[in-house]
Amino acid sequence: MTTFGSHGAVALHELFAQAALPALDDAGVSQADVDALYLGNTSAAVSENDTHLGPKAAAQIGLTGVPTQRFEDACATSAMATKHAVHAIEAGIHDVVLVGGVERCTPQSGLSTPEMTKVFASAASRQYEQPVGLTFPGVFALMTKRHMHEYGTTKEHLADVAVKNHYHGSLNPRAQHGEEITRETVFEGPLIADPFHLYDCCPFSDGASAIVLVSDEYADSFDQPVDINGIGHASGGVPLAEQASVTMTQAARDAAGQAYDQADLTAEDVDFCEVHDCFTGAEILATEAVGLFEDGDGGPAASEGRTRLGGEVPVNPSGGLKAKGHPIGATGTAQLVELTDQLRGEAGDRQVDSPSVGLAHNLGGEAATTVVTLMEARA
Amino acid sequence: MTTFGSHGAVALHELFAQAALPALDDAGVSQADVDALYLGNTSAAVSENDTHLGPKAAAQIGLTGVPTQRFEDACATSAMATKHAVHAIEAGIHDVVLVGGVERCTPQSGLSTPEMTKVFASAASRQYEQPVGLTFPGVFALMTKRHMHEYGTTKEHLADVAVKNHYHGSLNPRAQHGEEITRETVFEGPLIADPFHLYDCCPFSDGASAIVLVSDEYADSFDQPVDINGIGHASGGVPLAEQASVTMTQAARDAAGQAYDQADLTAEDVDFCEVHDCFTGAEILATEAVGLFEDGDGGPAASEGRTRLGGEVPVNPSGGLKAKGHPIGATGTAQLVELTDQLRGEAGDRQVDSPSVGLAHNLGGEAATTVVTLMEARA
Repeated sequence: MTTFGSHGAVALHELFAQAALPALDDAGVSQADVDALYLGNTSAAVSENDTHLGPKAAAQIGLTGVPTQRFEDACATSAMATKHAVHAIEAGIHDVVLVGGVERCTPQSGLSTPEMTKVFASAASRQYEQPVGLTFPGVFALMTKRHMHEYGTTKEHLADVAVKNHYHGSLNPRAQHGEEITRETVFEGPLIADPFHLYDCCPFSDGASAIVLVSDEYADSFDQPVDINGIGHASGGVPLAEQASVTMTQAARDAAGQAYDQADLTAEDVDFCEVHDCFTGAEILATEAVGLFEDGDGGPAASEGRTRLGGEVPVNPSGGLKAKGHPIGATGTAQLVELTDQLRGEAGDRQVDSPSVGLAHNLGGEAATTVVTLMEARA
Repeated sequence: MTTFGSHGAVALHELFAQAALPALDDAGVSQADVDALYLGNTSAAVSENDTHLGPKAAAQIGLTGVPTQRFEDACATSAMATKHAVHAIEAGIHDVVLVGGVERCTPQSGLSTPEMTKVFASAASRQYEQPVGLTFPGVFALMTKRHMHEYGTTKEHLADVAVKNHYHGSLNPRAQHGEEITRETVFEGPLIADPFHLYDCCPFSDGASAIVLVSDEYADSFDQPVDINGIGHASGGVPLAEQASVTMTQAARDAAGQAYDQADLTAEDVDFCEVHDCFTGAEILATEAVGLFEDGDGGPAASEGRTRLGGEVPVNPSGGLKAKGHPIGATGTAQLVELTDQLRGEAGDRQVDSPSVGLAHNLGGEAATTVVTLMEARA
């Protein structure tokens, strides 16, 4: 993956190449070996009048001719591309698929922060939510406030998620926010959508990420393959009012259940995870939804250091969306890059202690799309 | 599929429901039987600030919870959704997938015709083509002019494609343009991009289409299943200057080759087809690319009536994009609806004589994405 942050005005297919070509190099795969390209991008249609990015990216990296397509599923975009690549490989249709995502969300996209916030809101209901101004800080604030009401989650719990993820980000040279913060940094920041202050929210980011997926048989010829042993995907109601509970994120529970079943694993087997912490409250909901903690225990777990590097189950060792950054369409595969680095023992200062099983949780929209992926190191 | 034409301001997920629910009824499948929804849409992000349409459409038709995602690959969008559904079924991951597309391109989208033309141009190169004003009538005009230069294709050949497809459209109650035209209608229309007059160009359309794809085993329990026996997909260079030939549409040749190989069929086996006639010249290039005619024979074949209903290989019996209409993201699966109706013998006044094999050719962008699908009636 590229660093996340600002990448100026580089063309999107060129930015993607900055992740894709190193991914091919890392895998020892040449263009002639690649059977297909699965690409995620969410916002370039609106911000840059740039669509049909599959063939554009393929042409840029020497893959003209291979089948390629673009996925858009809000913030779950490149996890979805991954899921479909897994299916194609399982079906025996492809042996080697390059999967990734690219996005430009900083004002170099041509859109100001308020304009980009409106673009993001396109994932919410066009008829019932957008007209009343419900953008995503508000969506997740509603979900989090209800969690506070039901379970006693506090603003301190939320702040401690941000403090942890910024600490992790300080150990990640590709993170957008390498600076450590304190609870006070959070509380003193401007209020964005109660209960979220500025530092409860992930930043706007540019970036790209890519992974090389190969068939099981083909994987044996590689030095350090890691396995995707489960990938679950479910949807939830839009608008948010369609969801029976706004704290359960049922799609995440369903997706996690599918992934655990496929991999023959349970939440107890998970050594670390990357979850979709677009807001601090979202991390707490996610750690509960994938079964790491009982409902209501996610906040205290963060404050007790159980999810910090060195704790019982490190959450977002990369820094997460919160500190690593969140270039929307690139986030899903960036999570899998982190899982790969960790499972290979190549995560440097932020290395989790000898992990065997990693989980990634990538959601889109009002938690209405969630993909949960389980990866394991090969014995 | 819905009628194609103007559908006013109906919400896109509601418009999709107008195709999806009848598709489920036709198949005799209830919501509880549907494992996944694969949805195509191209332009709503820009025109209506409406993305993440998968879960929105799922919620509208009683499929909340099922995995669902949106594909965008310019005009090949819902053929691509179909391809991925085929892969998932082949992999044994799903048994029943609802696949379709929805689009609003008329000014009810909120965009004027010039604005929508710019949105369509987003599929062309952002760096090399859009800045010089190369919108899609110009892209296909360049390709067609070269074909005229190399092979002697004439404006009369082009007009005869339009006359044929309007005749076919006059037999299709769901077509946007049911009126018959003559060569003179074409020649007397305004010049859009030489050699194309207005009637050489497909219209802007609203509409939705949907199909129910099931596994081979499951299909046996249905009354009139038709088989997808091949689905090929390839990409070509963007910008157009990256393509070695602008008349060959190499991606279409590659995709057709894959589909024929998968189905163990050749072009000689094709009884009729739906091809991507966004412009009259595009139909001529397509009929050559999929092997129905030698290069250079596509134009004369149209003028000689060989591609007309009753001719040796009817092309676009539905009226094609030209007369049936072209709601971008809905076009790919609409072609498959026509193939299904024809193979079942349910196409009414435009019925092809006892066809066994139908082919669909759906392209995106500068012919840089092409999907070719082969369908057969069950014996």
